[in-house]
Amino acid sequence: MRTSEHVSAVDVAGSEMALAGAAVGAAKIVVSGAGIDERLLAPLHGLGCQVVSIGRGETPTAQALRDELTDAVAYLHGGEEIVSEEVLELAGGLRVIAFLGIGYETFIDVAAARRRGIVVTNTPDRTPDAVAEFTVGQIINASRRIPRHLGTVYPHWSGAEELPDELASKKIGIVGLGQIGARIAGILRLGFHCRVSYYNRTRKEGLEMTLGVRFRQLAELAEWSDVLVVMVGGNAETAGLIDRRVLARVRPGSILVNTARASIVDPEALRDALAGGRLAMAVFDGYYQDSSVAKDLLNDFGDRMYVTGHIASHTKQSMERMVRQAVDSVVNLLSGRPDPNVVIR
Amino acid sequence: MRTSEHVSAVDVAGSEMALAGAAVGAAKIVVSGAGIDERLLAPLHGLGCQVVSIGRGETPTAQALRDELTDAVAYLHGGEEIVSEEVLELAGGLRVIAFLGIGYETFIDVAAARRRGIVVTNTPDRTPDAVAEFTVGQIINASRRIPRHLGTVYPHWSGAEELPDELASKKIGIVGLGQIGARIAGILRLGFHCRVSYYNRTRKEGLEMTLGVRFRQLAELAEWSDVLVVMVGGNAETAGLIDRRVLARVRPGSILVNTARASIVDPEALRDALAGGRLAMAVFDGYYQDSSVAKDLLNDFGDRMYVTGHIASHTKQSMERMVRQAVDSVVNLLSGRPDPNVVIR
Repeated sequence: MRTSEHVSAVDVAGSEMALAGAAVGAAKIVVSGAGIDERLLAPLHGLGCQVVSIGRGETPTAQALRDELTDAVAYLHGGEEIVSEEVLELAGGLRVIAFLGIGYETFIDVAAARRRGIVVTNTPDRTPDAVAEFTVGQIINASRRIPRHLGTVYPHWSGAEELPDELASKKIGIVGLGQIGARIAGILRLGFHCRVSYYNRTRKEGLEMTLGVRFRQLAELAEWSDVLVVMVGGNAETAGLIDRRVLARVRPGSILVNTARASIVDPEALRDALAGGRLAMAVFDGYYQDSSVAKDLLNDFGDRMYVTGHIASHTKQSMERMVRQAVDSVVNLLSGRPDPNVVIR
Repeated sequence: MRTSEHVSAVDVAGSEMALAGAAVGAAKIVVSGAGIDERLLAPLHGLGCQVVSIGRGETPTAQALRDELTDAVAYLHGGEEIVSEEVLELAGGLRVIAFLGIGYETFIDVAAARRRGIVVTNTPDRTPDAVAEFTVGQIINASRRIPRHLGTVYPHWSGAEELPDELASKKIGIVGLGQIGARIAGILRLGFHCRVSYYNRTRKEGLEMTLGVRFRQLAELAEWSDVLVVMVGGNAETAGLIDRRVLARVRPGSILVNTARASIVDPEALRDALAGGRLAMAVFDGYYQDSSVAKDLLNDFGDRMYVTGHIASHTKQSMERMVRQAVDSVVNLLSGRPDPNVVIR
């Protein structure tokens, strides 16, 4: 799942020297993304840097980003913009990209950053509540079809639509029993009394005991589950993890809830599962960036898809936690100190 | 809250004789409402009665209902139609109304039924899961504003809207710690780790211990809560329970979730609380039948109200449970046996 390396002082010796060499005092720190409390950026001002916030209203273009980064020493990436090789080309002074969140690989050309000696950090230490609560909310929405009833003030139900099952009667399969997956499992087991099984690269025997969840291999889990919840980090290893082989095992009328990266679910396999009725509903938070198949899906099966724009972690509490971590990373690295959240260097 | 009387064989002696006097074998049983599995009605056919299903597609008019009931001996009320004195006027042979659900007082003119010696039953023994799960889903929807993000496939969030709080950080007040209220409290405490307090006519010290919830007087609860959940039975005693006095205590930005009868919340007090911003969101399942204030509310504050048409208990599991109970009641009473679910006689 997520690659996290603890980088010791010795490890970053090279980066430290490079950072110490930059004229930090005169330099610019670029901050992107909406909803960042300015007060949390105070430590950056404390470095004597100019702090420039960009892309509040909308995602900056590649050109705007290039222009802003030419004289930047650090970049707190809190938006949805893509940092390509082209964007980094003129950013000769850039030493740190502090990514707000964990899925940096989706937004940052990691190889390009590495080639330029740019250190990338992320914010792994957020509590899992924001995403777990959102995911459980969407499980209820999808299984009870609440959104389609909103605004229908007076009863009109004709019985033509089949009644939904109670969540308590459902079998929930969780793909990825990391921090968030385990929190989802806890809510569903201890709160809702669902049966829960999971798949994870490595078994979690401790959680099996404390939560009362059972390990199953991925394809077997897909077959067992009424609701299949995807909660693994998005990276090269997990891309397409939920593929044709997995979705072929899903039983008719099942629900897929993917609040991790869209790319973890193969869009063509998804199309076939929706078209064939094996999947009754599909939930995504954050969608495929450039897939014609995925666009067709929304046209063809829009009423059976609940898609939101990557908002599962958007809470005051998780935002503040992430911003604090990202700011700490920038301060650490520009001050020549090691930082625990370095993922690329 | 709900009036439930266990009626012994001795108690119903009068009704028994009346029922035994009706020509059950030749009589008609009217069944209203959508989504009733025909197979569950088999015991009614077993009585030798003609079973007539009405109002599948839409709620029958008062006139249609009058016509159907003229020669009916029993009436399984599973729809949303109002049974007024006028409707019952010509139903001289009607001996039993088996109401599907618990809130019969909203739909049946109780005094008129009593005057005619019609026995009314309800179905109190459903498990609380269906309504509790729906209610928790709507708490998440309202506090995370999920519905307004649905269909916004790509991130567009500008930060203009304030980030929501995590549910785990919230204080939830539950008005009515009956079977469903206690289940809601359990999910929120054990699953989501919220702080939960409650108001109930009588204190529930056992639940205070097992769930870790605290009793507060109603107005104090309103002031303490970030989310106020209403889950009391709808009757003359609870109508307007959430009134101006209570809503005046609510703190700005709070959420009201009423998945009980709409009438429990005074619509004028609700209007003022929404207009003044004390209530950020209001959730209803089932709405005021004929209140011009309530209609204005939807026009003026529609984007801050999530209203559904009385669907919280609409699950396969709860429907089956309720239909079995209602059918049992009809069979018991037409067979001259006592029935535990008689509420009016």
